[in-house]
Amino acid sequence: MCGIFGIFGNSEASNLTYLGLHALQHRGQESAGIVSADGRTFHVRREMGLVQDVFGARHLEALAGRAAIGHVRYSTSGVSQHKNAQPLTVEYSLGKLAVAHNGNLTNAPQLRAELEQQGAIFGGDSDTEVIIHLMARSRAPTLAKQMVEALAKVQGSYSLLFLTPTAIVAVRDPHGFRPLVLGKLRDATVFASETTALDLMGATLLREVDPGEMVVVDDMGMRSSRPFPADRPTRCVFEHVYFAKPDSDLFGASVYMTRQRFGMQLALEQPAAADLVIGVPDSGIPAAIGYSKASGIPYDVGLIRSHYVGRTFIEPQQSIRHFGVKLKLAAVREVLKGKRVVVVDDSIVRGTTSRKIVTMIKAAGASEVHMRISSPPTRWPCYYGIDTPRRAELIAATQPVEEIARFITADSLGYLSVEGLGAAVGDPESKTFCMACFTGKYPTPIRNVEDEAPVRAAARG
Amino acid sequence: MCGIFGIFGNSEASNLTYLGLHALQHRGQESAGIVSADGRTFHVRREMGLVQDVFGARHLEALAGRAAIGHVRYSTSGVSQHKNAQPLTVEYSLGKLAVAHNGNLTNAPQLRAELEQQGAIFGGDSDTEVIIHLMARSRAPTLAKQMVEALAKVQGSYSLLFLTPTAIVAVRDPHGFRPLVLGKLRDATVFASETTALDLMGATLLREVDPGEMVVVDDMGMRSSRPFPADRPTRCVFEHVYFAKPDSDLFGASVYMTRQRFGMQLALEQPAAADLVIGVPDSGIPAAIGYSKASGIPYDVGLIRSHYVGRTFIEPQQSIRHFGVKLKLAAVREVLKGKRVVVVDDSIVRGTTSRKIVTMIKAAGASEVHMRISSPPTRWPCYYGIDTPRRAELIAATQPVEEIARFITADSLGYLSVEGLGAAVGDPESKTFCMACFTGKYPTPIRNVEDEAPVRAAARG
Amino acid sequence: MCGIFGIFGNSEASNLTYLGLHALQHRGQESAGIVSADGRTFHVRREMGLVQDVFGARHLEALAGRAAIGHVRYSTSGVSQHKNAQPLTVEYSLGKLAVAHNGNLTNAPQLRAELEQQGAIFGGDSDTEVIIHLMARSRAPTLAKQMVEALAKVQGSYSLLFLTPTAIVAVRDPHGFRPLVLGKLRDATVFASETTALDLMGATLLREVDPGEMVVVDDMGMRSSRPFPADRPTRCVFEHVYFAKPDSDLFGASVYMTRQRFGMQLALEQPAAADLVIGVPDSGIPAAIGYSKASGIPYDVGLIRSHYVGRTFIEPQQSIRHFGVKLKLAAVREVLKGKRVVVVDDSIVRGTTSRKIVTMIKAAGASEVHMRISSPPTRWPCYYGIDTPRRAELIAATQPVEEIARFITADSLGYLSVEGLGAAVGDPESKTFCMACFTGKYPTPIRNVEDEAPVRAAARG
Amino acid sequence: MCGIFGIFGNSEASNLTYLGLHALQHRGQESAGIVSADGRTFHVRREMGLVQDVFGARHLEALAGRAAIGHVRYSTSGVSQHKNAQPLTVEYSLGKLAVAHNGNLTNAPQLRAELEQQGAIFGGDSDTEVIIHLMARSRAPTLAKQMVEALAKVQGSYSLLFLTPTAIVAVRDPHGFRPLVLGKLRDATVFASETTALDLMGATLLREVDPGEMVVVDDMGMRSSRPFPADRPTRCVFEHVYFAKPDSDLFGASVYMTRQRFGMQLALEQPAAADLVIGVPDSGIPAAIGYSKASGIPYDVGLIRSHYVGRTFIEPQQSIRHFGVKLKLAAVREVLKGKRVVVVDDSIVRGTTSRKIVTMIKAAGASEVHMRISSPPTRWPCYYGIDTPRRAELIAATQPVEEIARFITADSLGYLSVEGLGAAVGDPESKTFCMACFTGKYPTPIRNVEDEAPVRAAARG
Repeated sequence: MCGIFGIFGNSEASNLTYLGLHALQHRGQESAGIVSADGRTFHVRREMGLVQDVFGARHLEALAGRAAIGHVRYSTSGVSQHKNAQPLTVEYSLGKLAVAHNGNLTNAPQLRAELEQQGAIFGGDSDTEVIIHLMARSRAPTLAKQMVEALAKVQGSYSLLFLTPTAIVAVRDPHGFRPLVLGKLRDATVFASETTALDLMGATLLREVDPGEMVVVDDMGMRSSRPFPADRPTRCVFEHVYFAKPDSDLFGASVYMTRQRFGMQLALEQPAAADLVIGVPDSGIPAAIGYSKASGIPYDVGLIRSHYVGRTFIEPQQSIRHFGVKLKLAAVREVLKGKRVVVVDDSIVRGTTSRKIVTMIKAAGASEVHMRISSPPTRWPCYYGIDTPRRAELIAATQPVEEIARFITADSLGYLSVEGLGAAVGDPESKTFCMACFTGKYPTPIRNVEDEAPVRAAARG
Repeated sequence: MCGIFGIFGNSEASNLTYLGLHALQHRGQESAGIVSADGRTFHVRREMGLVQDVFGARHLEALAGRAAIGHVRYSTSGVSQHKNAQPLTVEYSLGKLAVAHNGNLTNAPQLRAELEQQGAIFGGDSDTEVIIHLMARSRAPTLAKQMVEALAKVQGSYSLLFLTPTAIVAVRDPHGFRPLVLGKLRDATVFASETTALDLMGATLLREVDPGEMVVVDDMGMRSSRPFPADRPTRCVFEHVYFAKPDSDLFGASVYMTRQRFGMQLALEQPAAADLVIGVPDSGIPAAIGYSKASGIPYDVGLIRSHYVGRTFIEPQQSIRHFGVKLKLAAVREVLKGKRVVVVDDSIVRGTTSRKIVTMIKAAGASEVHMRISSPPTRWPCYYGIDTPRRAELIAATQPVEEIARFITADSLGYLSVEGLGAAVGDPESKTFCMACFTGKYPTPIRNVEDEAPVRAAARG
Repeated sequence: MCGIFGIFGNSEASNLTYLGLHALQHRGQESAGIVSADGRTFHVRREMGLVQDVFGARHLEALAGRAAIGHVRYSTSGVSQHKNAQPLTVEYSLGKLAVAHNGNLTNAPQLRAELEQQGAIFGGDSDTEVIIHLMARSRAPTLAKQMVEALAKVQGSYSLLFLTPTAIVAVRDPHGFRPLVLGKLRDATVFASETTALDLMGATLLREVDPGEMVVVDDMGMRSSRPFPADRPTRCVFEHVYFAKPDSDLFGASVYMTRQRFGMQLALEQPAAADLVIGVPDSGIPAAIGYSKASGIPYDVGLIRSHYVGRTFIEPQQSIRHFGVKLKLAAVREVLKGKRVVVVDDSIVRGTTSRKIVTMIKAAGASEVHMRISSPPTRWPCYYGIDTPRRAELIAATQPVEEIARFITADSLGYLSVEGLGAAVGDPESKTFCMACFTGKYPTPIRNVEDEAPVRAAARG
Repeated sequence: MCGIFGIFGNSEASNLTYLGLHALQHRGQESAGIVSADGRTFHVRREMGLVQDVFGARHLEALAGRAAIGHVRYSTSGVSQHKNAQPLTVEYSLGKLAVAHNGNLTNAPQLRAELEQQGAIFGGDSDTEVIIHLMARSRAPTLAKQMVEALAKVQGSYSLLFLTPTAIVAVRDPHGFRPLVLGKLRDATVFASETTALDLMGATLLREVDPGEMVVVDDMGMRSSRPFPADRPTRCVFEHVYFAKPDSDLFGASVYMTRQRFGMQLALEQPAAADLVIGVPDSGIPAAIGYSKASGIPYDVGLIRSHYVGRTFIEPQQSIRHFGVKLKLAAVREVLKGKRVVVVDDSIVRGTTSRKIVTMIKAAGASEVHMRISSPPTRWPCYYGIDTPRRAELIAATQPVEEIARFITADSLGYLSVEGLGAAVGDPESKTFCMACFTGKYPTPIRNVEDEAPVRAAARG
């Protein structure tokens, strides 16, 4: 889970990258970094923390140049380290190179072992370093050709932005797992994980960088090529379900409208006899409104989200505990009191948060709680960059729906079907989206799925 | 604009105060402080910043004792200084005393001048110090009697929590401008500006501290008295309109439901021919849902709020400017495109933010924008603790509604009437609420309203 | 133990105060503060920490005005708190006032109790606040007259700098315990605790502010008065022994040369059969050179001081301990090996540090260690601003010299006599210097010397 | 200019490394780092700043394991970057490896270019990375053999400590330019740049790690080997002149006594008719005492060094300038007044600081200033790890001594001769010490000395 941004051809490249990363902050809150290029050398800042905390006015001033790339990163396993903050910067035979990566390589451990056998040294844990080593070992004469050679060897997901002192190269893997769009801001070319970053600065969306496409931008202009063998695109449906910002257009469709369609389809598949529909903020809201529209049950706001729960919040120890979700969400008693409530959320992972939410809503006076999930049961880990726990921790991997309902203390529980999900994203036969987290059908070879622990989760882009 | 919290009789007093201040964080983000009492002495921490940044685990551990009071503070005039952070702590003839104050004294400048003439020295700018000086000069033998003597001399608004090494005293001014509630958490007595703080920790709401009531809690138990001459209560209606958290019960009514009623009444008074109702997050949402219910026009989410805009955000200078509201709000194009949109917001102060919002919604494709405001035109400054600019800067003080509509580039603009506001809060004749910001009818003497600048805005509690 | 600096009439007043405080940093490392006056109002910064850490370029820029006073403060009792950082700033009947104080009032507790009975409130623990309250309660019409009235009531030591928006007033107590000098920097008037601050900025020393003198500087020029009844000056001899910087001229004499004379006198009084004289850095060095000169025993450097031992140094716990003095001092083995060594230090307080130093020197191979102290045995606590422990902790208050020698494991121990000390400072009969810490003869009434604990040590200026 | 420390076989390895780095802080103040090994993995902390600021109690606790290495680093060119902080940590074919390096490789640029041609990628600028790449490319089966292969290819200076999860390897280049000693602390083996680190923790000095020696320590014990072809040792004489701590034994001799011999020899070669000898703190002091002893001219302290000049000191801009040396040194007027003064310093680089010192001493009243330098004129840049400017900036490279005397405004100037220097270190024919900075006779091939700029000075260990 990461966000990337790049711009070529604007004298305020680093300022705009800062704004772009701010718009992508929901894709990663652990570290933030910008590398700018002034035609001759790089200027670098990357630190642990939020975009607004990492960059002050004097840092942005020092990031000189008309080109820049940036990265925000999320880490889950607690192994959050400065050495994994991106963009990575290296020097090698063709000179200076910086890279920002969103995605996860499924054959990174094997490639890394092979490279180490050949004498490579690694400074961090990230898959991204594997790509750079493969490039550095290529005998190809140009950066672009080295990239093609290197990327032909990797499997998995990657939306990549490379920066040299004089150019930006954007590449997206042939399956197009992770998003990447191309835009224009006056004379400058802009790349971003999501369109919300373009909207913020008034840039025009041109199109997606296509799955398997490579785009080079430098002072000579922009060239596109498709150097990889064609493959079936399988974009990540979970970006629509949960991860992307609702005002973004993702893979050509509005995230907000897609989520609302999930809710409408969910109402058809999983009706409920209820007085009220509420959503779990933030990602459950659009689906809740969709559920309300399709079911005719009135929508209202039953949970208020706090704007002030950040990374540094200390949960007092001792006898006071289990505040968890209450620090973030507060129930609106007068809305819920005595009501049969449909609660729409985007997914259930371990079930513990849902259980707390149901408890809170009942404590506020709801007479019945009918939990409705705007995606199918999450039964398989993701190997393409979404952070999910091992199978054993996914409640839906081991428990039937009725058992989950009992665990979360809901009066009923209903999930959207895989077919319904597909219909809502315009892919009824699950052909153009990756839905492996729901179906277990991984579009690329994964070795030993059942046992594989996300051992390098910390370093996933 | 401030929030206060106090607890007596729990071994985790400071931990609970920390949680309580977190729940009240929306009432003040500039500084935070806790003073705890261990029966003998005080432990103090107060710093500039958010609750979660000011207090770490080791600070909370050091705040020993079974009683504590806390304060969050907001400052507007740019004069944000450490010396004004609360709770204030002093030593005087009766020993150690700490005070947390929400409100604003209208005769503070005169009292301060008199006190200085009598030899008083002031360390900060706050009204609160005036109260302590009046107490210290009293010849009354007990703290409670000193308070009564002191508070008899002040005019304006105050919800106050006093802490001594062995007791807490809560007082609310006879008009009850600012809220203050009383609750129980097992054996402990809890005070808070809003009920959301009680809900967070599972405390039970007993009742409001009444206007003009003084409540003393110590190891002997709780005593209530009403030492001030009775006066007409005039609670602040703007708490309902904008300031309080929607999940709170305020002055005995649900904030959320009250806002929804504002929206319903607004739909009746100011209908619009439109396809869609949206709210300006966060405070416009409940009223927008109310407007939708009463008008039958569908509600949807047209603006997405960022969770990552904090105090340290640097707006890049130079050629990139005017990001303002776009850093905080993003329009959902697919929802708005081609639609006639009713946009519900809680108030218009200067008009500049509304103008940016209308522009953003139109840029996202809305064909018409009908702005509806869930309160009457804001025409008069507040002298009771809500931070408002001078009259000259209040657009509604100088411009008719049509002119405001033109300025904000809306196709139409409609405000809720004073009568409609009163009806929605159960006070149709404006007798039990202060609505002076809309009507200019101040419940207490204000000298020279027209000219008075909020000169001490920085130090308002 | 504090240092104070003030300047009137220079457009870089706060920059120069910053430099002056840097030069006085040895007088206090706990907190630092500057208040500047621009003719209309004050600009303030005071924080815990060293001068160089408290003030950055942007802070100094914000401290506008042609007048400024500054303060560095040292605290010993562990009660180091922001609220006691100086200069203090208040508002009272005559307007804004800032104060920087070096010294200690012996009747502060009584005065404070009286003031509290009269309605005064105190925000911190410092004696300085007592002075301001006394001034504020005066009916005198001018600041200067209020000061005279107030200071007539206090006993003890004070070198004070007052700042108003348009003037600086400097006052020194009639005994002149603590130093204060007056200088010129072009058109500006400068005050400082020590001459080293004047030397740093190229200012010219005019003279001491005399004991009992008050100097007012404003745009009208400089006026001197002597408003207090004449008293016998009793300057602090310990400033010469230990506290002042050796390059300063103190009370009209060179600190360095005075310390060298202490060493010469010590050699006459306490000879030793030895091969080598070394000093304990830094304050023992000049006396060691003096001892060498008078005795003919060669001087050399036997202990090297680290420049990197600061407040944040963590001494690892567990099995590694007692590094103490070794983190600060390292012995030069080749200098000491096989030698009979005279070690000159300025004083012995508890004896524990001396013991570690003797141990270290013997471990480095010295065959004999003859400790020589360039002042008499420290037997009485100071009530005039030097931080000393209670009598019970002063080893010389309870142990004879031979016992101290045994405790510190020295082969011999010799102190300078009171008469010798007096001779070296030109006061053979102890008439013009306060030597109470050696003699117990306090120049002002002290109640209950024997029992009095330095209860407010934290707040001594 | 760097300091390195390592310990194997103590449960408080990181605590002791912390102490060791503190003792070596004079060798580098820019960044500090510790890597500990717990038998299985590494724990790492490295940051910009002083040892005491980089490491807090919780950091040291987290650095678990019975083995650790540490590094302090100094950078001069302003390119001070986190990416160059050491110890470096990498993963490669043999697993995890950490390295701390003191020294400079003269053929690093060529090796780096070759490695890049072969596909190596570099994350930082340091020479150290070159060594690791050479090791990683070796086909040798063990770490030790890889090191030998790698180090056979490099030229220049290196004292290296390698850490694996289960061992420490120490290596010193065949010339032994930079120091490295071996000691014992109970059962643990200790390595340090200087003996002062051993003394601090009570470890016993065993001997130098010999030039060209490799020492491996693991749970099996300690093995020594000499894998490199024998070469003439040429230890760095400038360590004795200036860099090492005076209480250290360096290359088998006391630094303090060596400096004193420099001063004695200097007095013989460069006598002066004077009243007084003073030293420039700190490194000029021992030589000044030596000069005094050999000449019979009395020694005294004429310059006082401030303990409070650190990296964050802001020199106020505007009209106040050129404080430079005055912030650090203060003249003792009474010592210098009217005297003919011999001032002993260790070296003159650009001459600007000496000029300020002479000016300050004359301003304090000295009638004559005779500057004496305890080393020969510095005429050639160092390529072995001492940070010196390009030749053009070395005043002695372009100016005769009389001209330098005139520039620094001294009444006379005298340097120690190369022969005298050699005699004082027991190497009269300059055979066992590198004196290239004085003679230009570099012990290893240097290409294009005249033109070579210290382009990578920032990354020198």
